[in-house]
Amino acid sequence: MKSIIKKSCLLLIALFTFTAYAQSAVKKITNHDKEIIKEIVASALEENRGYEMLIELCEFGPRLSGSENSLKAIEWAKDKLEEIGADSVWLQPVMVPVWERGTIESAVLNLKDGTKKELSIASLGGSIGTPTEGITAEVLEVQNFEELQQKKAEAKGKIIFFNRSFDNSLLNTFAAYGKAVDQRVYGAMEAAKVGGVGAIVRSITSKYDNTPHVGIMYYADSLQKVPSAAIGLIDADHLSEKIKTDPNLKLTLKMDCKNLPDRKSYNVIGELRGNEYPDEIIVVGGHFDSWDKGDGAHDDGAPCIQTMEVLDIFNRLNIKPKRTIRCVLFINEENGSRGATAYAAMVDSLKENHLAAIESDRGIGTPRGFYVDTDSLTLAKLQNWVPELNNTLIDWIKPGGSGADIRYLKNAKALFGFVPDVQRYFDYHHSANDVLEEVHPREMELGSAAIAILTYLLSEEGL
Amino acid sequence: MKSIIKKSCLLLIALFTFTAYAQSAVKKITNHDKEIIKEIVASALEENRGYEMLIELCEFGPRLSGSENSLKAIEWAKDKLEEIGADSVWLQPVMVPVWERGTIESAVLNLKDGTKKELSIASLGGSIGTPTEGITAEVLEVQNFEELQQKKAEAKGKIIFFNRSFDNSLLNTFAAYGKAVDQRVYGAMEAAKVGGVGAIVRSITSKYDNTPHVGIMYYADSLQKVPSAAIGLIDADHLSEKIKTDPNLKLTLKMDCKNLPDRKSYNVIGELRGNEYPDEIIVVGGHFDSWDKGDGAHDDGAPCIQTMEVLDIFNRLNIKPKRTIRCVLFINEENGSRGATAYAAMVDSLKENHLAAIESDRGIGTPRGFYVDTDSLTLAKLQNWVPELNNTLIDWIKPGGSGADIRYLKNAKALFGFVPDVQRYFDYHHSANDVLEEVHPREMELGSAAIAILTYLLSEEGL
Repeated sequence: MKSIIKKSCLLLIALFTFTAYAQSAVKKITNHDKEIIKEIVASALEENRGYEMLIELCEFGPRLSGSENSLKAIEWAKDKLEEIGADSVWLQPVMVPVWERGTIESAVLNLKDGTKKELSIASLGGSIGTPTEGITAEVLEVQNFEELQQKKAEAKGKIIFFNRSFDNSLLNTFAAYGKAVDQRVYGAMEAAKVGGVGAIVRSITSKYDNTPHVGIMYYADSLQKVPSAAIGLIDADHLSEKIKTDPNLKLTLKMDCKNLPDRKSYNVIGELRGNEYPDEIIVVGGHFDSWDKGDGAHDDGAPCIQTMEVLDIFNRLNIKPKRTIRCVLFINEENGSRGATAYAAMVDSLKENHLAAIESDRGIGTPRGFYVDTDSLTLAKLQNWVPELNNTLIDWIKPGGSGADIRYLKNAKALFGFVPDVQRYFDYHHSANDVLEEVHPREMELGSAAIAILTYLLSEEGL
Repeated sequence: MKSIIKKSCLLLIALFTFTAYAQSAVKKITNHDKEIIKEIVASALEENRGYEMLIELCEFGPRLSGSENSLKAIEWAKDKLEEIGADSVWLQPVMVPVWERGTIESAVLNLKDGTKKELSIASLGGSIGTPTEGITAEVLEVQNFEELQQKKAEAKGKIIFFNRSFDNSLLNTFAAYGKAVDQRVYGAMEAAKVGGVGAIVRSITSKYDNTPHVGIMYYADSLQKVPSAAIGLIDADHLSEKIKTDPNLKLTLKMDCKNLPDRKSYNVIGELRGNEYPDEIIVVGGHFDSWDKGDGAHDDGAPCIQTMEVLDIFNRLNIKPKRTIRCVLFINEENGSRGATAYAAMVDSLKENHLAAIESDRGIGTPRGFYVDTDSLTLAKLQNWVPELNNTLIDWIKPGGSGADIRYLKNAKALFGFVPDVQRYFDYHHSANDVLEEVHPREMELGSAAIAILTYLLSEEGL
């Protein structure tokens, strides 16, 4: 018994020492820090400056890479960062892929009784169009690629209809999205493999309506390219029903979308220079491009503005950062990640020291936590900040994926992904539902404050 | 040094022992429990049974105590609990106060240029009406009762306009509500004290629109009763501006609301009988009455249904509770709490053993935690359940207020208040904005699941 107590004692002392180390390694939060943190929250919630910027941004419409809108919005963001009072603001040129939806996207069911029914579809990003007269073919419904392989004898010459549902029974909506997204991304390739002439994909969304949800799809050079479109859930169910009663039903698909040569676009970058360690850089950012339906308000307009607002909060509250805070609005996350890779290449070539990066790209919702990609000792230190971050309702910092754009910053000590509530996110995602009116000002501003507080603590303490 | 280590050791052993005790006092969560918990979450999210019930309930319209709607809805709830398969369902009669809005509520500004402007107002619950010809008087704007006292020389014969804002800078929206609500509840009394002839109160809401938000107001027998109404924020600001340029501006207020004799109403009660300890009762519930604008979807329709759904979840997943689970839909929380006090009186007179009670009355939002009113040892035990509750995104169990209806159950060992995200709640609260369309199915169902899991653990383990 004694020896057990002794061993337990040693174990507990070790634990105690580790905990004490993790706690002492970060400076005690002072009353001054606490005051600043409270000011950040009150100012964000009261002044709504981020939300006001979002109203302006949404007036440009969606911001697909290379589009006129996106270039106008980039100019706006540059001007806005200057107006906010960033010490320097610049545009990093990036060549981006260009895909245009065109003006025709229609899917018409030719019913047994001679009538026609128009279905609610939208071309998927990157898809080729159809011939002018369209493609008319029978429809083969499958739930997944395995089923398609089993039915490949029937597939030739048909439009393949991938109809697997978003799994609403899952708590994690991103996991539900992940479980369904292969049909959108690879559906056209899988269809081509079995001689299909097109692909129609059930929209990947948690909301039961008839709005198609788009997103990227890919081709392989070795395979025939066939057009691919998303379909709204109500019409997906309708189509599925109709096929059951009339297996020879034909669908006419017309799309005039196309891929064009790359165009010049830009990452927008603005920074507040640190007054003690200016060479230690903390990046905050999101992706400035969006899909071309709705306003791209949730994905990723408002989250981008949350990170612009971090600079605004520092300036309006007269907080002088010890380390450099750099806002980066990455272009082309949705269909190429060219902005992210160009930025990371610049960091490497200039040998810049990126201490940390925080990405906001999970839409707008009340703050819940931060995922962080870092070592376990740094994680333990960071978790001491949760009580301060809880002023914005952040309950945790956990290991997890940071973000699609900052993940290329391999030398940063910690990469953070801001995690708001995401129960509603896939109601809007990549669709005409993603508009200003679906963003709640308080939820957005609490996110700005959460990122600003984490940035403040990183800037004060380093890592 | 050695003695410090020894002391630390003893301290740590004590801590360890206490923690071990708190942990051992609750049975280890088995794999079977974990499976049931996962089924509860998946079933709630997938089947949307609670949300479907809410669609039905909202068809009755608002459910003010004593109203026709409320009595029809009570019948519906009783039938629904029977349909769910409760072992017994009954109505507990309760006499409730009756207030009727009537058909006239108007406030007209008589402007300098001879034109008139209608303002968006709504009579406050419990207010008397005006004479048929209305009350026409000048308006005195104040921010609070202190300012009214300072200006009491000017107040006589005027309509007092209480225009203090909901403090949007606060993180806790309930705190912001609490800071502003005195003007609504006691404004008419304070107006009467200084010779005022009516009270107009700025709506207590986080949303900037022109919808008036109502709620209870009180009179004192010793004071003159003067009519009292809420005004939408846009018109509150308009009125404030107009008074600045024309201090002698007159307002004509007409209202035909009235108080009527008490009527018979009911608490709705349904229970699943425990198969091991049937005399240990766990109450789940909310209040079934609502204000008479909107559908009372958030306050407190959907939360009531979350607690009805607890019974449905147990039955549809064939979970046999060890202890009795009783759903209580309390009548008259909004303007009298007669249902809550009648229920508590019944519990006392029958000497029923209420182990715990869980109230849902903070609207619908993604789950965050549970407040609990209990002793510190029970709290420590309960906190061991947070990892299981986290399957619905519950991050914490903290000491705090439970709910307006269950707080009368003085002998229960633990009283819980379910806490969803409340950033949007006061956008809807007590107004025409509180409708079905503002309730998100996933957020609602996760709340049902959170309450069901806590109920399951309480039913399995006791306290």
